[in-house]
Amino acid sequence: MQVFSVAVAGASGYAGGEILRLLLAHPQVRIGALTAGSSTGSRLGDLQPHLAPLADVVLQETTPPVLAGHDVVFLALPHGTSAAVAEQLPDTVVIDAGADFRLTDAAAWEQFYGSPHAGSWPYGLPELPTGPDTQQRAALQGARRIAVPGCYPTGTSLALAPAFAAGLVAPRDVVIVAASGTSGAGKSLKPHLLGAEVMGSMSPYGVGGVHRHTPEIEQNLSLAAGQPVSVSFTPTLAPMPRGILATCSAPLADGVGLAQVREVYEKAYGSEAFVHLLPEGQWPTSGAVLGSNNVQLQVAVDDRVGRLVVISAIDNLTKGTAGGAVQSMNLALGLEETLGLPTTGVAP
Amino acid sequence: MQVFSVAVAGASGYAGGEILRLLLAHPQVRIGALTAGSSTGSRLGDLQPHLAPLADVVLQETTPPVLAGHDVVFLALPHGTSAAVAEQLPDTVVIDAGADFRLTDAAAWEQFYGSPHAGSWPYGLPELPTGPDTQQRAALQGARRIAVPGCYPTGTSLALAPAFAAGLVAPRDVVIVAASGTSGAGKSLKPHLLGAEVMGSMSPYGVGGVHRHTPEIEQNLSLAAGQPVSVSFTPTLAPMPRGILATCSAPLADGVGLAQVREVYEKAYGSEAFVHLLPEGQWPTSGAVLGSNNVQLQVAVDDRVGRLVVISAIDNLTKGTAGGAVQSMNLALGLEETLGLPTTGVAP
Amino acid sequence: MQVFSVAVAGASGYAGGEILRLLLAHPQVRIGALTAGSSTGSRLGDLQPHLAPLADVVLQETTPPVLAGHDVVFLALPHGTSAAVAEQLPDTVVIDAGADFRLTDAAAWEQFYGSPHAGSWPYGLPELPTGPDTQQRAALQGARRIAVPGCYPTGTSLALAPAFAAGLVAPRDVVIVAASGTSGAGKSLKPHLLGAEVMGSMSPYGVGGVHRHTPEIEQNLSLAAGQPVSVSFTPTLAPMPRGILATCSAPLADGVGLAQVREVYEKAYGSEAFVHLLPEGQWPTSGAVLGSNNVQLQVAVDDRVGRLVVISAIDNLTKGTAGGAVQSMNLALGLEETLGLPTTGVAP
Amino acid sequence: MQVFSVAVAGASGYAGGEILRLLLAHPQVRIGALTAGSSTGSRLGDLQPHLAPLADVVLQETTPPVLAGHDVVFLALPHGTSAAVAEQLPDTVVIDAGADFRLTDAAAWEQFYGSPHAGSWPYGLPELPTGPDTQQRAALQGARRIAVPGCYPTGTSLALAPAFAAGLVAPRDVVIVAASGTSGAGKSLKPHLLGAEVMGSMSPYGVGGVHRHTPEIEQNLSLAAGQPVSVSFTPTLAPMPRGILATCSAPLADGVGLAQVREVYEKAYGSEAFVHLLPEGQWPTSGAVLGSNNVQLQVAVDDRVGRLVVISAIDNLTKGTAGGAVQSMNLALGLEETLGLPTTGVAP
Repeated sequence: MQVFSVAVAGASGYAGGEILRLLLAHPQVRIGALTAGSSTGSRLGDLQPHLAPLADVVLQETTPPVLAGHDVVFLALPHGTSAAVAEQLPDTVVIDAGADFRLTDAAAWEQFYGSPHAGSWPYGLPELPTGPDTQQRAALQGARRIAVPGCYPTGTSLALAPAFAAGLVAPRDVVIVAASGTSGAGKSLKPHLLGAEVMGSMSPYGVGGVHRHTPEIEQNLSLAAGQPVSVSFTPTLAPMPRGILATCSAPLADGVGLAQVREVYEKAYGSEAFVHLLPEGQWPTSGAVLGSNNVQLQVAVDDRVGRLVVISAIDNLTKGTAGGAVQSMNLALGLEETLGLPTTGVAP
Repeated sequence: MQVFSVAVAGASGYAGGEILRLLLAHPQVRIGALTAGSSTGSRLGDLQPHLAPLADVVLQETTPPVLAGHDVVFLALPHGTSAAVAEQLPDTVVIDAGADFRLTDAAAWEQFYGSPHAGSWPYGLPELPTGPDTQQRAALQGARRIAVPGCYPTGTSLALAPAFAAGLVAPRDVVIVAASGTSGAGKSLKPHLLGAEVMGSMSPYGVGGVHRHTPEIEQNLSLAAGQPVSVSFTPTLAPMPRGILATCSAPLADGVGLAQVREVYEKAYGSEAFVHLLPEGQWPTSGAVLGSNNVQLQVAVDDRVGRLVVISAIDNLTKGTAGGAVQSMNLALGLEETLGLPTTGVAP
Repeated sequence: MQVFSVAVAGASGYAGGEILRLLLAHPQVRIGALTAGSSTGSRLGDLQPHLAPLADVVLQETTPPVLAGHDVVFLALPHGTSAAVAEQLPDTVVIDAGADFRLTDAAAWEQFYGSPHAGSWPYGLPELPTGPDTQQRAALQGARRIAVPGCYPTGTSLALAPAFAAGLVAPRDVVIVAASGTSGAGKSLKPHLLGAEVMGSMSPYGVGGVHRHTPEIEQNLSLAAGQPVSVSFTPTLAPMPRGILATCSAPLADGVGLAQVREVYEKAYGSEAFVHLLPEGQWPTSGAVLGSNNVQLQVAVDDRVGRLVVISAIDNLTKGTAGGAVQSMNLALGLEETLGLPTTGVAP
Repeated sequence: MQVFSVAVAGASGYAGGEILRLLLAHPQVRIGALTAGSSTGSRLGDLQPHLAPLADVVLQETTPPVLAGHDVVFLALPHGTSAAVAEQLPDTVVIDAGADFRLTDAAAWEQFYGSPHAGSWPYGLPELPTGPDTQQRAALQGARRIAVPGCYPTGTSLALAPAFAAGLVAPRDVVIVAASGTSGAGKSLKPHLLGAEVMGSMSPYGVGGVHRHTPEIEQNLSLAAGQPVSVSFTPTLAPMPRGILATCSAPLADGVGLAQVREVYEKAYGSEAFVHLLPEGQWPTSGAVLGSNNVQLQVAVDDRVGRLVVISAIDNLTKGTAGGAVQSMNLALGLEETLGLPTTGVAP
């Protein structure tokens, strides 16, 4: 059984920590260098006390020489820094948990990120319908560079793409409102992320189409629809550490009913290991997928207003970041896609 | 200074408890009989330990003779039971925190509640625009019967009604997604309301237009718009005891910009004591209004998709239930509308 | 009715915010200057969005000239800075929510705070038994300088002082373990206070007798006991914004039973407005006192191990800081002690 | 590689659900019958939506014939029911997550549980020091009946037993205060366990030595000490789904210092896979062990009061219940003790 050596750049943050949690349970991985920026020299146990088996590892500085020589390198770095690192790792599978290579449209990148576009890499969402009968998976098998999707785009694109790919909904007045645990905002020290502020309170941000995940969601849905799709996207912070619950809706095409919708979603995801259309009457909850790579989906047809409503639940750090990253790694390395990935949530 | 005697029927539940919390701070109220159903005979301190000044009051059974002889009676009873009680209190101001008298349309009532329509009473949301230049307040001054709005309709109707009254938005593809604290589900013992299930998890319910607050929101917006308005409404439960954050959006009429929107909302609420359009750049949070009768609002124009997005935050138990009830009582009794009502949240 | 002008120095923090929340509800107070350090020039609404009536007040710099000319000045400043400010306010009632003037023992101050002792002021805990038949209240009536107790000392001293004053317990192996909401740690930006770290987790700090509130608790209990009392004190952070639940125990003197204990506590607090010994069988919860100036107490005698266990619940920001401060102000000004102070919690 | 068939009786509750979560990740287990009481006939996915791989399994009734024929049966049943089931499974390894067989002292059982004593089985806490140089592990290797420890006894006994076994502390005035997530109270529908009651509030219960885990803790510590040890134990409910943080203290024997204490604990647990004495300066948090079988420990010597303070953190459902059960199963079956058990927490 082949074992691959893996390095993680940005091991001190939430994304890096979750990548390590999953890698520790992966049977064909040997964890190599762990690097950081300002935390260089720290003991990992001081920063990620939940990763007991790695507690005594000391973080090295994020430099190409430290990362070179591994089979796979995960990057969990600030925006704008991945390209320079990746360039110096030509023989390595590089999986970027950051945003730099997610968007194919340079203009959209520049509008939302305010910096030059670094390019685009294969998009690490294997289950995504990319048309009536195609999925994103093929683009990831054997890939040497992978851009891990954003957390919101993961949950929301999987929720709506089948409907767009099958022509069930119209590409106008698409509305997505999502609630995320606060780990989605990372470990940065901002007053509104303090526990006392967060607990007992819901708050919105990036309202009015300005959140950077907006063009990424639109890219995914447009690909599925075969025509441009715009979305009204509102993210909110919920008083929980992890999880995203997304409420996604769009106008139904004429004559589409619940049975047809369920048939389309069952066809899209019926053979997927991680994406589950729930039985009628059961609704997704973010708690049920916590810590797992699962996606829970449920659909409703609101005949009174002629709209399809799809609810999705993911763990923003697992399927929404690190799980998607490891799943993509498996595809890139030719391993079983599900290897090492949890399919049970940690509940209650 | 006149003092009014007030009874509360249903004093053991969350709505009744919050009504009592506010009445205890009201300078012109004397609290009289407190009644309950299955908790009859209990000491209030065992059920509502936060209401220290009333700890030793024993709950009486909810019967008209017990409630008679007060100036005001608040009803916080199960659906379908208010009419029989109110009939026997002809000389009393009756303020119903339940749903029985909220809807004017008997067919809508029967469709959503599955029981005969009891009728409708003046709707206790004084600030609600009911047309281009009118508000609901006038209908409440001196009223003898008042139907307190539902919690979701309070926050969401105030969010969108000004835009409809001013013709800023179109009455189609109106989408509301709201997150509520779990006190909104009451004290009923259901497995999904257990703390271990709720904490760390977001969950939807009543998806697809089936929640009973849907026709009430539509009634309010249709009144403001002067034409029928349907809404796609999805409520969710958030891991917090109190509060509602609602994300409300609708298609903008041609040529409407942010300045015009803000002008309309400032005109609608600029002289209101409890409804606050926040300065540009600041967003509502449910934590900031916790325990208060305040409503925080903010508006955004999403030009990319041509939609107005309005965010509102309320405390579901205060402005969303008990605060609205006491505010209505003040109007009914000819008192200062804001008397005894908190205008500061309990934060953090 | 006389109205007193009041300034608050440190209005941007949690203590300052809570003082303002209470002052806004106080019938004989006019709020004057609000000052800050690094937030000077900010609009209060940006920092304390729950204080709607003061949203447009601009924070001034904390300097004696700004604070002078008020009847009362509350100081909510970093340790070590109150003395210099107070010296320049000779004609003002100064109420310090910080630690500088709480300890009477200079050596204890220097040991725990590592800086020179500023002195001591009358200690703002009116209900504290200071001996078999005396209370702290008398020292506060008409006082011109008051040191507001720390939050942990408030809840724990009230829990154990009656037992020490009455000789029910021995002054050895006194153990206090308390859980506090994270607002107790203030608004400082520290990684362990991030919402994602706090939610779903309990953590201890200051273990082994090193927390700065330790000598303050000992000072209070020693005063009540008339002999030196040492305590083993362990504070913990709980995943909630507010509240302290303290479990306090000490060895029972020979022959002391529950009836005698209850009698002592009823005598100590039976006529207090804010301190409530609960009926047998009911236990304090921090949720029941949230936002109020109340203290809930319950006692148990554990005959198997010969120890008295006293549980207390307070809101760390209200009775534990701002409520104690305003209560002391009332005594200093000769007002009704309970004026403007909430006696109902905000629950659930 | 041998695969063992395993049944779980009581699969609808929190303990049963967590046992299944761990068994799903165990490489040498095949999950067989899942049984329940009132939930017989339900689809597991409706009750335990996080256990996606078992969603379509239908619960059978808990009867010996259904459970027979498996290599191992886990019992997660109400108190008092395990004996009758176990009697009819003579050839099966039976692991009881309930209390029935934990106590060796019939009088203690009857005092705390009020029913006849069923007997005692080997106690499933392998790492527990049972004397100066012995551990509980040997009693579990090859056992056919195992009593899984209670959650509080797991965390607290591991915290204090080394000190007692080494004679570092005196067996008097032992005080334990622990905070638990509310899953520890199970899925029973009680008003004080509702989310709205739990969130934002800490509450004690079983104060004064009456909690049923008290004699179990005393049994463990007495065994380690070689003499009777009584404890003052106060459990509290914290606003989190999972986790226990315990603060445990006892009077130090003369002359014992921190270095000696650390040496004793390093010797006791230095070769354990799951029990970790943290480096000096780092403190346990319940969040860091969430979902894992880990125990975090830290010790402090409080010279001012002459007491040892030990803090422990566990996940009440994992190491505190299901993890301990699976770890014991591994020993009973002669498997690697750590097989299938998570050593990383799910954080943040």
